Amino acid sequence: MKKTAMAVAIAAVTAAAAHAGTVTSDGADIVIKTKGGIEAKTADGNASFKLGGRMQLDFNSFDGVINTVPGEDGSDIFFRRARIELGGHYHDWEYEMAYNLTDSGSIDQLHTTYAGLGDLGQLTFGQQKENFGLEDTGSSKWITAMERSLPANTFDTGNNVGAKLHGANDFISYSLGVFKQDLDDKNDLDTAMTGRIVVRPMYGEDGLIHIGAGYTTRDGEFTQLGSRLGVRGGEDGSAAARIRGRYTGGAVADELEAWNGELAGSFGPVHAMAEYFDGEISGAGGAPDIEADGYYVQLGWILTGESRSYKTDIAAFDKVKPSGPSGAWEAFARYDELDVSDTDNIPPVQLIGETGNTLTLGVNWYANELVKIALNYVHAETDEEISGEDDGDAVVGRIQFAF
Amino acid sequence: MKKTAMAVAIAAVTAAAAHAGTVTSDGADIVIKTKGGIEAKTADGNASFKLGGRMQLDFNSFDGVINTVPGEDGSDIFFRRARIELGGHYHDWEYEMAYNLTDSGSIDQLHTTYAGLGDLGQLTFGQQKENFGLEDTGSSKWITAMERSLPANTFDTGNNVGAKLHGANDFISYSLGVFKQDLDDKNDLDTAMTGRIVVRPMYGEDGLIHIGAGYTTRDGEFTQLGSRLGVRGGEDGSAAARIRGRYTGGAVADELEAWNGELAGSFGPVHAMAEYFDGEISGAGGAPDIEADGYYVQLGWILTGESRSYKTDIAAFDKVKPSGPSGAWEAFARYDELDVSDTDNIPPVQLIGETGNTLTLGVNWYANELVKIALNYVHAETDEEISGEDDGDAVVGRIQFAF
Amino acid sequence: MKKTAMAVAIAAVTAAAAHAGTVTSDGADIVIKTKGGIEAKTADGNASFKLGGRMQLDFNSFDGVINTVPGEDGSDIFFRRARIELGGHYHDWEYEMAYNLTDSGSIDQLHTTYAGLGDLGQLTFGQQKENFGLEDTGSSKWITAMERSLPANTFDTGNNVGAKLHGANDFISYSLGVFKQDLDDKNDLDTAMTGRIVVRPMYGEDGLIHIGAGYTTRDGEFTQLGSRLGVRGGEDGSAAARIRGRYTGGAVADELEAWNGELAGSFGPVHAMAEYFDGEISGAGGAPDIEADGYYVQLGWILTGESRSYKTDIAAFDKVKPSGPSGAWEAFARYDELDVSDTDNIPPVQLIGETGNTLTLGVNWYANELVKIALNYVHAETDEEISGEDDGDAVVGRIQFAF
Repeated sequence: MKKTAMAVAIAAVTAAAAHAGTVTSDGADIVIKTKGGIEAKTADGNASFKLGGRMQLDFNSFDGVINTVPGEDGSDIFFRRARIELGGHYHDWEYEMAYNLTDSGSIDQLHTTYAGLGDLGQLTFGQQKENFGLEDTGSSKWITAMERSLPANTFDTGNNVGAKLHGANDFISYSLGVFKQDLDDKNDLDTAMTGRIVVRPMYGEDGLIHIGAGYTTRDGEFTQLGSRLGVRGGEDGSAAARIRGRYTGGAVADELEAWNGELAGSFGPVHAMAEYFDGEISGAGGAPDIEADGYYVQLGWILTGESRSYKTDIAAFDKVKPSGPSGAWEAFARYDELDVSDTDNIPPVQLIGETGNTLTLGVNWYANELVKIALNYVHAETDEEISGEDDGDAVVGRIQFAF
Repeated sequence: MKKTAMAVAIAAVTAAAAHAGTVTSDGADIVIKTKGGIEAKTADGNASFKLGGRMQLDFNSFDGVINTVPGEDGSDIFFRRARIELGGHYHDWEYEMAYNLTDSGSIDQLHTTYAGLGDLGQLTFGQQKENFGLEDTGSSKWITAMERSLPANTFDTGNNVGAKLHGANDFISYSLGVFKQDLDDKNDLDTAMTGRIVVRPMYGEDGLIHIGAGYTTRDGEFTQLGSRLGVRGGEDGSAAARIRGRYTGGAVADELEAWNGELAGSFGPVHAMAEYFDGEISGAGGAPDIEADGYYVQLGWILTGESRSYKTDIAAFDKVKPSGPSGAWEAFARYDELDVSDTDNIPPVQLIGETGNTLTLGVNWYANELVKIALNYVHAETDEEISGEDDGDAVVGRIQFAF
Repeated sequence: MKKTAMAVAIAAVTAAAAHAGTVTSDGADIVIKTKGGIEAKTADGNASFKLGGRMQLDFNSFDGVINTVPGEDGSDIFFRRARIELGGHYHDWEYEMAYNLTDSGSIDQLHTTYAGLGDLGQLTFGQQKENFGLEDTGSSKWITAMERSLPANTFDTGNNVGAKLHGANDFISYSLGVFKQDLDDKNDLDTAMTGRIVVRPMYGEDGLIHIGAGYTTRDGEFTQLGSRLGVRGGEDGSAAARIRGRYTGGAVADELEAWNGELAGSFGPVHAMAEYFDGEISGAGGAPDIEADGYYVQLGWILTGESRSYKTDIAAFDKVKPSGPSGAWEAFARYDELDVSDTDNIPPVQLIGETGNTLTLGVNWYANELVKIALNYVHAETDEEISGEDDGDAVVGRIQFAF
């Protein structure tokens, strides 16, 4: 039977009236969405709201140089990250609130953005990423390996309170910000300045080529440069050994400076990325410089054929969206190296491990848009023994729900 | 006047257009609900979101053996629990996030469940209840008395991080899980294993009969077995005395083992429940065993005629939903007993109170589906004096809003 | 073309069906709203839900007596407040949850209100404002100056757990509550009682005249009376000096008593307000009284012509809602004074600064309903030097997003 438009109209209204109440707005038209979380936006584009969150449950088992306890195997199960995330906008102003539920609660991101100048001139105020490095600027939800590489960890600027000017179009992305590093003993601000620029000679259906560089200079108190060996665990990550250069006897540096270079490409289901970092901490007060540099190279292949997405506003890779009901599968390999041996190992400097590297092999199953299951194998080596050992292995797994 | 279907259709649409904006979805049809919190689900069943919370404001006044300060009356007003709760699902995966606002913030529950195997084989990963005991597995929002019984407190496994296989139909409910108890001094996991099985020979319109048993075995460090005497208060509950067996001089047990039996029934407005618990902590390192056992029996009657609801997925009683606008009234009595006297009271073991019991009489007013007002009277007795007293009384009240 | 009602009905339904899913309720009709946050309420008025929040990002630069470090300039950038806020109601019961994201998480407000007695007799249970003083009772989102005045800070009762009876109509507002101040060393409650009454001889289109008075009496432990000099910063506000009277050598008062008077008016774009406070801490145990009194006067003018809103339920000023797309601009001046010199400066009493005052000049830009940008200049003076200085200046700025 062919229904007339009239009949359809009546049927629709009547059906709705029969088993459900109406939902209306007392102002502008609203469009809502739910996919584990909830979103609402006005049809006129003037206002929006979004609530989401993430949880990452990690399991690991590790031995050798990775465990701080010599000669013993370690293992742990713990929340790597757990957050509630709110965001929205009203006319030209946006906000984002991400709160860490772990560690008895702390602010992850909390900022407001003035977007009235257009995509190429956004101003973000508050606690935010500084955007230093490709791996670090990408979301922890969608990094390929479970943990970031040794040099990215070493020079991770963290999320800090400040102001950042940033913008992007299809060809270029940039950011330049000033942030609070610390308060000195006169109650005066120690600040950091960080900039990054990325260009994309190719970006479209055919693929992506990403070339970038960043620089950060920071005033404050610094006592070491280094990184865990690819694995976490224990109270506040204390189970995992670190390769690093550090001061002994109370020496403190008052400046940190670092730069990096980024190269990445994505073609169909394959992506490749590499970064190099070089930096040092130095002091006016007689503390000798401690230098560190390192790099990583990574290759990933989505076996089910999807492409890893990419966000120009942060110039970083993002989620893998499965195209079929059984999810997407990805395999990857990453090799990284961190070298702190350029500094002499004499007091007040103490070098631990001198040079370290890890090889990470892994597979990710994106069960659906919200769920990622990861399994990584990590082999770590150090030039010098740490507590009597210079290599170790780990198996790490993660269940992630991000809504 | 009798309206035609056509007139109704036109009137509905026109009225809506006259004073309100539309609310639509940009994907699947959505059904929403608000009752203090908010819920949204897609009509196709593929996604859902729910935000709620709870607050429990307690007042108490207590004397005698219940107060840790000899010879003095104590009183307090404080939040017993306050949580924000998020939950939802996307296709086969569900999540739940419950965050404690009290105690400067901590994770209560945080887990994701794979539900693709059906109701009889659900797998939950993350921080969750272990499901040991009827009183403990039920929600703290809907337990009959304000505090759980002495033996249920003694063997409360708490919420822990791990993996649990569980399932239920109308006849049977089961759960079996492995959880993180602790990290040892080698950075290695100490684990716990807990299982529970419940059968319902009767479950339907005529009533409910619930028979269950549980078992838990735990590696880790244990220094005492015991419970508060039915009342809380003071910084971190420090105002209330405890009956217990504990080690002195630094002795530590490395294993805890316990089992329980459960029996419950519900017929119309009346419910009865009873549990028995028996367990011990023991050590390879020379620390003597400390044993504890106890039971409770409880009878409740909803004066306004409603029945207490029951959830098969957790095999526990749940909310009372008032049938009328003036709410539902419930009266109950519970007697419980805890005995730690089976162990010799010689160092390094110290027994406090030896055997204790409480009689709790109470009345609950369920003002509406979200609001519960409770008033309990507690009389506590101990075999041996604690700080010179062996009995005490308390009046405790609660205002609960759970949305 | 003139459309018939019928054509409109059909067009509406058809258009909706063409590009969007439907959103319905499975119960009562629902009205939703989004403006950065989200609100939902049932059309029958029986239930509602609201999620919002606030962030205040402050920058300051200060010198002289304001900095605790003598002879040095200080500066800081930090979150003054950051909160997630939930609220709603179900039939006669309302709730509010406001959680501080700063300071690793704490409860700001958490209470439930029985509203079944009507506007003139509301009962609120839980952690809430005590409502003492006009400036303190108003929301921190919409106070005119960035920080409250010296005497309002000195006698700020904070948010406490208790029960408050309150009510309001257009002419009168009142509140009377009992709150937990502390627990004593017998685990017994120390309580506070606070009352406030406000009348409005004029309230309507022509303007507002507000006359009020308050009183609070508090048992507990008190060791000082005083206030920061209009500026915060540093870990937990430690960067800013305080004018105060305090005990040395372990002396403690066991009672605090204070009263205040309030006078305010609002006529078109101009508002004026003034308060006087007088109070003391005193002890049975031989600790001498410490007295403090002070006042402030404030005048504000909204240059763009809007009026500052006012809420009768809390008897306090509220938000400025810009009437145009370029926002609203407000200029204001406030002078305040705090005097602790009525007490002799002999041990165990120590007076710091004796008398202090600040002049605050500021401008607020309400960019839209959610965003406020504030810039204040503060000049502070003290009668006696604090660490060698008796005056100082500060520039403080704030970006606020409140959804």
